[in-house]
Amino acid sequence: MIVDAAKISRFSRESFTKLGMSEEDADTVTTTMLEADYRGIHSHGFLRLPIYVKRIKKNFIQVPSKVTVEMETEAMALLDGHYSAGQVVGKKTMEKAMELARNHGIGMATAKHSNHFGIAAHYALMAAEQNMLGIVMSNVEPLMPAIGGAEKVIGNNPIAFASPTAEGDPIVLDMALSNAPLGKILFAQAQGKEIPKGWGVDKNGEATTDPAQVLDGGFLSPVAGPKGFGLAIFAEILTGILTGSQFSKSIPSMYDMKEKQSISHFMLAIDLSQFVSGEEYGNRIKTLTSFVKESKKAPGVDDLYMPGEIEFERERKNKESGIAMEENVLQELYQLSDELGVSLKEVVLQD
Amino acid sequence: MIVDAAKISRFSRESFTKLGMSEEDADTVTTTMLEADYRGIHSHGFLRLPIYVKRIKKNFIQVPSKVTVEMETEAMALLDGHYSAGQVVGKKTMEKAMELARNHGIGMATAKHSNHFGIAAHYALMAAEQNMLGIVMSNVEPLMPAIGGAEKVIGNNPIAFASPTAEGDPIVLDMALSNAPLGKILFAQAQGKEIPKGWGVDKNGEATTDPAQVLDGGFLSPVAGPKGFGLAIFAEILTGILTGSQFSKSIPSMYDMKEKQSISHFMLAIDLSQFVSGEEYGNRIKTLTSFVKESKKAPGVDDLYMPGEIEFERERKNKESGIAMEENVLQELYQLSDELGVSLKEVVLQD
Repeated sequence: MIVDAAKISRFSRESFTKLGMSEEDADTVTTTMLEADYRGIHSHGFLRLPIYVKRIKKNFIQVPSKVTVEMETEAMALLDGHYSAGQVVGKKTMEKAMELARNHGIGMATAKHSNHFGIAAHYALMAAEQNMLGIVMSNVEPLMPAIGGAEKVIGNNPIAFASPTAEGDPIVLDMALSNAPLGKILFAQAQGKEIPKGWGVDKNGEATTDPAQVLDGGFLSPVAGPKGFGLAIFAEILTGILTGSQFSKSIPSMYDMKEKQSISHFMLAIDLSQFVSGEEYGNRIKTLTSFVKESKKAPGVDDLYMPGEIEFERERKNKESGIAMEENVLQELYQLSDELGVSLKEVVLQD
Repeated sequence: MIVDAAKISRFSRESFTKLGMSEEDADTVTTTMLEADYRGIHSHGFLRLPIYVKRIKKNFIQVPSKVTVEMETEAMALLDGHYSAGQVVGKKTMEKAMELARNHGIGMATAKHSNHFGIAAHYALMAAEQNMLGIVMSNVEPLMPAIGGAEKVIGNNPIAFASPTAEGDPIVLDMALSNAPLGKILFAQAQGKEIPKGWGVDKNGEATTDPAQVLDGGFLSPVAGPKGFGLAIFAEILTGILTGSQFSKSIPSMYDMKEKQSISHFMLAIDLSQFVSGEEYGNRIKTLTSFVKESKKAPGVDDLYMPGEIEFERERKNKESGIAMEENVLQELYQLSDELGVSLKEVVLQD
C-alpha cells in the first residue's frame, strides 16, 4: 500500500518527542527514515520506528541525545555518542568531518557509543551538498562468518560514498557488504525459488542454494567472498577498533533487547574547493557520466546508470505519490500509536 | 618452474639502470615485482618486466624518473609523476601521504601522469610499517562495462588497505574490482570448464558461463554487479577525476603500445599514534583476529584467515624456495637479456 509521507513523518517526530527527544533530533531521525523509504531502501525506513521506540523505552537508546567531542587533533576527531540515536550521532560526525575538512582539506571524524544510523548514503550526501566528497562506514552487529567459517564474526558493514556533480543529482553509492540482504533470501523462499550460489551458507558453513538452509541457522555470505570479507574487516577496523567501541562478536543484536549496542561510525570529508576548481571537477564528472551512460548497451537494456541514479529517480516519484509500506509495518505503527497516545489517522493513500 | 629470486632481481635492476633509471628507482620497481611474485600475485610480478622495458624504450614510461609536488595544501597533496614508472610515483605518493599524516593526523596524497604501479598492497604496507593505516587506490585502463552495458568503460581498479598489528604480520587487503581476474577465465577455458555466473558477459553484454564467450570480445564483470561497479566508479573519481589525469575510456591500454598511459593514484595515511595508544590498538586487533580465527569452522576447513595472511605465508615459503615462474615468462626474460645485453644465467632452481 501507499501511505502519506507527511502524516507518517509527523507521527514519527511526535513519537520521539513524546519519549523525550528534542524536536531537532526527532526531525533528524525521522528525515533519515523518510529518505530511506523515498529511495526504496525500505529496510531502513519507518519499518525501524517500532524497534527504535522499544530501545528508547529500555534506555538502550539514550534520550535526550548527547554527543560530545572526546578527542580532536588536527584533521581527526573522535566523538562520543553516549548511546544516542545513531542518526543524531551520524549527523554530528559528518558535520565534524566537514568542519575539519574546511580547515585541513580533508577531515576524518569517528564516533563511538552510537546506534544504528539508518542509510549511510544520508551522511555521504551531506558532504556532497557542501561540494565535498563524503565517505561513510559503520560497523553493525555480526551477521557473516569468516570465509570457511560457521559462526557470525563480522557485520555486513555499510560503506557509502558521494560526490557532487556540476548539475543534477550527486553520484552516490551505498552498499552493504553481504552479497544479498536477508529480505531477498526471504523473498526467494516465499516464491519457492533457489538462491544463487554465494548468497549464503547453511548452519554448518557449507554452500547452499536453498534459502531455507540459510534462514534456518545459516548465514549471509560476504560480497565476492574474501573481497567482501576483507572490506568488512577494514570497515570494522576504521570504526569499532579505531574508536575503542564494541566490535565483531562483542556487538549484541539490535533485536535481542538485552543490552545497549555500541555501534561506531567513520566519516571522511574531502573539500574539493581546496583541490580543484568547481568548473573543472564538474566537467570531468560530466564526461565520466556520459562515458558510462552513452556506452553500448546489451540487448533489451534501456538505460545505463551511474551509482545512485535509480534511487534519486525513485525518490522524485515517491515524493509525488507517497511511500510504499507493507501492511504489517503499518499495523505495527498503529499499535505504537495506541501505546504512545500519539495520533496516526487516515494515512493510506492507496491500498 | 622455480627460479632464483636474487638472480632475477639483479637482472631486473640492471635492465632498468641500463635503460637510464637510477639505481634507487630500479630497486623500487624490482622490489615491488619481487614482492608480488613472493606473495603469489604473479600477474604483477616479473611477468611485467618485458612490457615495462618495451614502454620505457618507446618513452611511454619516462626515465630517469621525475616526481614533483604540483600542489600541497594542509593535509592534501597532488603529485605529478611526469609519466615515470608507477612504482616510483606510488612510493613517493605514499611517502607524501605519511608526511602529511604526521603533521595533521591524516594525510591524502594523489598522483597524476603515472603508470601501472604493481601491487597496491605494497604502498598500503608502507603505511602499516610506520604504525599508520594505509588506503590505496589506482585507476587502470577500462576493462568492464556498466551494469547492462556492452562496452568497456571502467577499470577493475584496485583497492588496498593495511593495518599494523601488535605482533606478527600486518592485516592487508588488496583487491581488484572485477569478480575474477582474466587468468582464472583463461584457466577455466583451458580445462574445458564453465565459469560461475557473474564472472563475465559476452560481446553483446549478455550473461554467460562459457569462458570462450567472455574471451572472444566479451568483458569481465564487476564484483557483485552494481556494488563493484559503484566502487570502481568511486576509485576513478578519487584518482583520474580528482587529479585531472586520464580516466575511463580516455586511458589507452598498456599493451597497445600506441601512446603514454596517464594513470592516477590515491593514497591515504592515518597516523594511529595520534589517535589511540599503540598498546590499546594492538590489543583490539588481537581480539578481532582471535574472534575470526577461533570461530567455528565449516566441515573440512582447517584454518580461518585474516586478510593478507595467506599471502604472508606464501611470501615466507617462497623466500626460502624461490619464486614460481611459467616457462614462457622466463623465455621472454632470456630474450630481453639478449636485447639489452644484460646477463641472465642459471636461474632455474627446479624444473
